[in-house]
Amino acid sequence: MGRVARDYAGALREIQDHLHKELLPFWTTHGVDTESGGFLTYYDRHGKATGETTKTLICQARCIYAYSAAHRAGYGDGRFLQAARQGFEFLVQHFWDIEHLGWHWTTDRRGTPLDRSKLTYGQSFAIYGLSEYAMASRDPQALEWAERTFELVQSHAGDSLHGGYYEFQESDWTLKRPGAYGGDRKSMDVHMHLMEAFTNLYAASGRALHRRKAEEVIAILLTRMLHPEHGTGLAQFTFDWKPLRAILFKNVWGEDRDVDDPVGRPLDNTSYGHNVELGWLLHRSAEVLDLDVGTYTPLIRALYDHCLTYGIDWKHGGVFCEGPHAGPARETNKEFWQQAETLSAMLDAVALFDDDRYWDGYLNVHRFVMDTMINHPVGEWFPLFSADNRLLRDHMAHAWKINYHTIRSMLECEARLTKLLQGASR
Amino acid sequence: MGRVARDYAGALREIQDHLHKELLPFWTTHGVDTESGGFLTYYDRHGKATGETTKTLICQARCIYAYSAAHRAGYGDGRFLQAARQGFEFLVQHFWDIEHLGWHWTTDRRGTPLDRSKLTYGQSFAIYGLSEYAMASRDPQALEWAERTFELVQSHAGDSLHGGYYEFQESDWTLKRPGAYGGDRKSMDVHMHLMEAFTNLYAASGRALHRRKAEEVIAILLTRMLHPEHGTGLAQFTFDWKPLRAILFKNVWGEDRDVDDPVGRPLDNTSYGHNVELGWLLHRSAEVLDLDVGTYTPLIRALYDHCLTYGIDWKHGGVFCEGPHAGPARETNKEFWQQAETLSAMLDAVALFDDDRYWDGYLNVHRFVMDTMINHPVGEWFPLFSADNRLLRDHMAHAWKINYHTIRSMLECEARLTKLLQGASR
Repeated sequence: MGRVARDYAGALREIQDHLHKELLPFWTTHGVDTESGGFLTYYDRHGKATGETTKTLICQARCIYAYSAAHRAGYGDGRFLQAARQGFEFLVQHFWDIEHLGWHWTTDRRGTPLDRSKLTYGQSFAIYGLSEYAMASRDPQALEWAERTFELVQSHAGDSLHGGYYEFQESDWTLKRPGAYGGDRKSMDVHMHLMEAFTNLYAASGRALHRRKAEEVIAILLTRMLHPEHGTGLAQFTFDWKPLRAILFKNVWGEDRDVDDPVGRPLDNTSYGHNVELGWLLHRSAEVLDLDVGTYTPLIRALYDHCLTYGIDWKHGGVFCEGPHAGPARETNKEFWQQAETLSAMLDAVALFDDDRYWDGYLNVHRFVMDTMINHPVGEWFPLFSADNRLLRDHMAHAWKINYHTIRSMLECEARLTKLLQGASR
Repeated sequence: MGRVARDYAGALREIQDHLHKELLPFWTTHGVDTESGGFLTYYDRHGKATGETTKTLICQARCIYAYSAAHRAGYGDGRFLQAARQGFEFLVQHFWDIEHLGWHWTTDRRGTPLDRSKLTYGQSFAIYGLSEYAMASRDPQALEWAERTFELVQSHAGDSLHGGYYEFQESDWTLKRPGAYGGDRKSMDVHMHLMEAFTNLYAASGRALHRRKAEEVIAILLTRMLHPEHGTGLAQFTFDWKPLRAILFKNVWGEDRDVDDPVGRPLDNTSYGHNVELGWLLHRSAEVLDLDVGTYTPLIRALYDHCLTYGIDWKHGGVFCEGPHAGPARETNKEFWQQAETLSAMLDAVALFDDDRYWDGYLNVHRFVMDTMINHPVGEWFPLFSADNRLLRDHMAHAWKINYHTIRSMLECEARLTKLLQGASR
């Protein structure tokens, strides 16, 4: 045991092999819609376009993010920046609502709006993708669009009575109906991604207002959205922050799901993936915003420990979906994005706390991803496995699954393992 | 006693005499700065310009409001609209901050910015004045400026953690220092005027977003800013709504005041003028926003009753400044704007509750205003009297005293008395 047993170099080698020989090559030959512009995001298990062509704000914005981030990491010889640029141009030309302002939810392949809903989740990814592209391209227009979206979220989605943000709006920014339409709920998911978006916008702009709003949404997450005893994430809330049983919504973004679930999941339920994602994104925000990281490390550690104890499948490998705030997992499928976020988070924990338990957690998920989740011959990750590692869904990309989690995770792991390796050899 | 004793016609005659033979004539020959544009707002007790020329956002925006409202009431044969128009043009040309957005706090006579602070109080009056001018002129550009200011207040002054609005910002919208600089406080005064502004903007625009924000600020006022037992207004708060002893601020707008008051007024203190102004403005908002007025009438009545019981000087006439939430007045000077707002409020109460007590209250203040407060030979109101009706200050207009309270009150009284008279003769 101890530091000598941690094979940072071996893990880094596997990460880099996957990133540079499989994942980035896949997104070099896939993704860009060379016919209509923007991104094509539907590929089957063989990496063949399925024929579906609906363009979702989430996937367009996330692709802009992922290609820009890959370029900023030094890869692609300008090709990824070019991919991001044409995605940015498509977005501005077709997704922007000139009448009501804000970004539409979906368009057809050529950019004709299909669902003009203004979802805060989608607006947050527009801010995230546009600010990343602004930093990659140094295009002041991209930053302007990111700032415009930010101000629109403040003015049109802000709840000036209770704080925080409304999430589900019609095309004209009036609130959607309650229940499965989401017009009466707030969620940790959306507020976490607003933190991520405002932080990245501040990194691009340096403006005090962006920093203040990032700090405020952090305070919302920490004071309203964590379990008071366990520190793990609660999912959904009334406008005035009373926790609610989490239900599924008509406008989905995680997966195609049945929405006939008026009762919802039990209140004693938390998402391992969201918890660890909140942990490392919060750490990143504290650094970018120049806050005292030490203030947040106990909270971050609680999130990581919960995943380590209950979320990781120590028998078959990987991370389960959901479970109670204290006790074994209940939803034991293994989805791709939770694996991706746990990899980043466990390496964050290794660097923060220098404890072998987190390295063991990392290695567990690393092996599961490398040996099971990745579709190596094609280059991307499968979306879903059962608890005993049976493949449940097999597409490479879809309306809501794209390269944001996978590329970001591999870039994070490469950078973090490189740094750990440098630290270890010093 | 009873309805027959209420001489609506006699009161209306006096109001109309003052409005049409004194007040509006004064503001026909005073106010507009024919040399530099905008408004000149410094006049001594004889109505002579004092030579002071600093232009304050409050007075410029309030003049735009008052001239527009007088025009909308059918007066001035276009001269008041023209006065408002040149004020609008001066404001846009000189008060708008192109770099940081928002309206400066003061300029010199020719429009060079002096204090570039971005105070939410001032922004709210810009919205109020611009939306009134938009309705008077039907100029779509005026409405656009009002909407732009509204969105800026949401995005730059909104507290997305606790709800409500920050109030004291530097030129670049960073919060001012705490204490007398106001950077750590919220107030009923500012939130009441935001309700007034958002309501008027909705009246001009019909946009659902403006309606929603007006409703939200009403809910803030009613759930955060009233005494839980007495229903009277609390003055100042921490960001998370804990009542604070009210202190004076460096940036003043009510009067020139000494700001060496770190301790502040006792917590058991409320403003008769703000309470009754909140009452009738809330009633007006409920009507404009098409809310159920009945929901609010008990709250409105409590505000009016408190003023009737403790605020009105039944011995010498008029309304005192401030006092405890239950008990006799403590600050017993009589300032002009509280008289103006009490007149509108007591007539509102007569119409709402048909109770002679409110008519008696109205008549008391009406007589005090007509016999003492108004400087009849000049046409405007004196600013301040002592409890025994000694004149304490004698200017007709100043950096923060202008025609908004007086003209609005006389227009309100004229319209309300006319309606009461029609109802009584039916």
